[in-house]
Amino acid sequence: MFETIFSNVRSSRPLIHSITNYVTANDCANLLLACGASPIMADDPAEAAEVTKNCNGLVLNIGTLHEHTIPAMLSAGKQANALHHPVIFDPVGAGVSPFRTQSAHQLLQEIHCSVIRGNLSEIKTLALGCSSSNGVDAADTDRITSENLSELIAFAKQFALSMQTIVIITGTVDIVTDGSTVYCIENGYAMMSSVTGTGCQLSVLTAAFTAANPTCLLDAAAAAVCAMGLVGELAFQRMTALDGNASYRTYMIDAMYHLTPAQLAAGARYVKK
Amino acid sequence: MFETIFSNVRSSRPLIHSITNYVTANDCANLLLACGASPIMADDPAEAAEVTKNCNGLVLNIGTLHEHTIPAMLSAGKQANALHHPVIFDPVGAGVSPFRTQSAHQLLQEIHCSVIRGNLSEIKTLALGCSSSNGVDAADTDRITSENLSELIAFAKQFALSMQTIVIITGTVDIVTDGSTVYCIENGYAMMSSVTGTGCQLSVLTAAFTAANPTCLLDAAAAAVCAMGLVGELAFQRMTALDGNASYRTYMIDAMYHLTPAQLAAGARYVKK
Amino acid sequence: MFETIFSNVRSSRPLIHSITNYVTANDCANLLLACGASPIMADDPAEAAEVTKNCNGLVLNIGTLHEHTIPAMLSAGKQANALHHPVIFDPVGAGVSPFRTQSAHQLLQEIHCSVIRGNLSEIKTLALGCSSSNGVDAADTDRITSENLSELIAFAKQFALSMQTIVIITGTVDIVTDGSTVYCIENGYAMMSSVTGTGCQLSVLTAAFTAANPTCLLDAAAAAVCAMGLVGELAFQRMTALDGNASYRTYMIDAMYHLTPAQLAAGARYVKK
Repeated sequence: MFETIFSNVRSSRPLIHSITNYVTANDCANLLLACGASPIMADDPAEAAEVTKNCNGLVLNIGTLHEHTIPAMLSAGKQANALHHPVIFDPVGAGVSPFRTQSAHQLLQEIHCSVIRGNLSEIKTLALGCSSSNGVDAADTDRITSENLSELIAFAKQFALSMQTIVIITGTVDIVTDGSTVYCIENGYAMMSSVTGTGCQLSVLTAAFTAANPTCLLDAAAAAVCAMGLVGELAFQRMTALDGNASYRTYMIDAMYHLTPAQLAAGARYVKK
Repeated sequence: MFETIFSNVRSSRPLIHSITNYVTANDCANLLLACGASPIMADDPAEAAEVTKNCNGLVLNIGTLHEHTIPAMLSAGKQANALHHPVIFDPVGAGVSPFRTQSAHQLLQEIHCSVIRGNLSEIKTLALGCSSSNGVDAADTDRITSENLSELIAFAKQFALSMQTIVIITGTVDIVTDGSTVYCIENGYAMMSSVTGTGCQLSVLTAAFTAANPTCLLDAAAAAVCAMGLVGELAFQRMTALDGNASYRTYMIDAMYHLTPAQLAAGARYVKK
Repeated sequence: MFETIFSNVRSSRPLIHSITNYVTANDCANLLLACGASPIMADDPAEAAEVTKNCNGLVLNIGTLHEHTIPAMLSAGKQANALHHPVIFDPVGAGVSPFRTQSAHQLLQEIHCSVIRGNLSEIKTLALGCSSSNGVDAADTDRITSENLSELIAFAKQFALSMQTIVIITGTVDIVTDGSTVYCIENGYAMMSSVTGTGCQLSVLTAAFTAANPTCLLDAAAAAVCAMGLVGELAFQRMTALDGNASYRTYMIDAMYHLTPAQLAAGARYVKK
């Protein structure tokens, strides 16, 4: 199934509109090109909805949120909802400030998001109103372990149900659920957290995968999570003694460029319940 | 002639002011350094004209256009016009929204651009008011082929004449014309379109080449197009099995860093009519 | 001593808030991760102070200064001052416009900066109100040489004293002083200036080093300067024939990723007076 899902991305070349942060925008654009999709970034309220109209999917990422991009996110999101395009919400750093947390809540209230993707601290902030994180990475107390996995799956399912959305919580194990079915995904490599924006990259990838597979959003989202983890693994295999996180960043996008649907199907490691 | 043109860039080290998008700004800056020029990005209306005054050339790129950068582009453009600095206009995504298309028209109306560089969809939008593209890449129906080349040359010449500017249309073949003379350039490699911002990079390179060669703008613009295409070819020769679009991006800038004026003269492939 | 200082960075993993330019933000984030710190970029006035509260150090970089980020810098800076967090000020391009110069002065007036880091042209602009630079690089007449070194040390000391801060002037020799003690640092490699943002990267690195070593800010700042120069040297050793400034950029961050406290102590080349 993941093979077909990824083939659909490469054949349909979805155009993805990202309203995102300036720190990782370049990597997000190159990753979209690498997977066979096409990127456009446009965040002025004067054109956000119009740009979305011409696209196949929308990403809202609050990594460097500005007052003036909130109306752009709202109008693009509503347009995407009206057209039944997938909307992926990436609540980067939710919890670091009331402004960011409140804006995230407002976006979730006014826009129906197909997928919400964050680390455990970010998702806890959205679901429970509090977390332990101070930055854009998950707090040390917010790790996904074999001990708390069942509990976190229940938490993710409940949040997905309450928001009528797919929830992706990324960590050592990634949890992907629509509230009833759950994927627990083991692809990925610890070093990915030493590259800025691998989470942002996963969010745009999820947009490409869901946009190209509108009839099976959950499986498409899970396939995207496996694909991102898999390129993290493949990129690591390529590392030589002097390569560090900057080379690793390059190798991940390179790996996505070469990844085939068959390789994804063979390399995906997950349990579906 | 191209040898001298490129030598002038390396010896005069022109300072290029770019008002550009945040997606590809870093690559544009590093490409300018690679070719021997120097970058400065400054897009606040409060300083745009002042910064331009200290520079040798100006790039206006609407890739992530904001309401508040339009006045910066207008004041910098008028300042550059007053000082007879070359102004390169890159209408990224013209046609994706009325806001972007209208802003492009306003800029062209109030500023005299030395060079307008875009793909066929973007240039059609400016010249004819419509195109088939939805994103920042040329539409599939807007390909430059051997069948439509003569027609597109005539179109480019007419647009150049009407705007009193040099027009660069990039595609499989690149067309560079001032309305009377035409360069048809065959340098380049298809994979360049899998790296975000190679068009933006060509625009800043064109600024460097024209700024360093104010008495032969058309030839300088053509030399820049050949140089960008040539580094795309050289970079591809360096690719190994695992390299993808991210490595290719690095190799292109690397190739510009090492490109010599003599290599450019030897490697440029074009017909001048 | 540098060994302990760098070990403290790797063990305490300081969270650094950068209000910075969009040209080099990605490299700054990856360099922070490479040295063991953690980045967050947030520049909206609505959250700047709140984000700073959760961090360990603050960088104010005016590379692409906007009217609307000045209040963000002011509120974050005041918050950092109240919490006694180190504040690193990077006056990128000070002197290129009255807007930028005046904003720099305003920031210095309202915020106490622990460290001011710039090239000689930028520091002259701040200290003397004028310089010879037109861009973001030091003017050719603003080189640090063996002839003018003593004079420049005296100048740096006086400026440090008058501002009650640590001053870092980067060039062929780097000068680091708190007004009484002076480090003259010889690490680094000329090619670093062909990569955009190595100065910005040094500024965030200085934030990480000082945040992790609050009781010895001057030594920490000097250690950061040595570390940045050292990775420039190590990265150059890795260059092969076709590698240019883009590969060099990658190799520097990679080198930081692998740099050990012991290597820093062994490779630091400086005179302390």
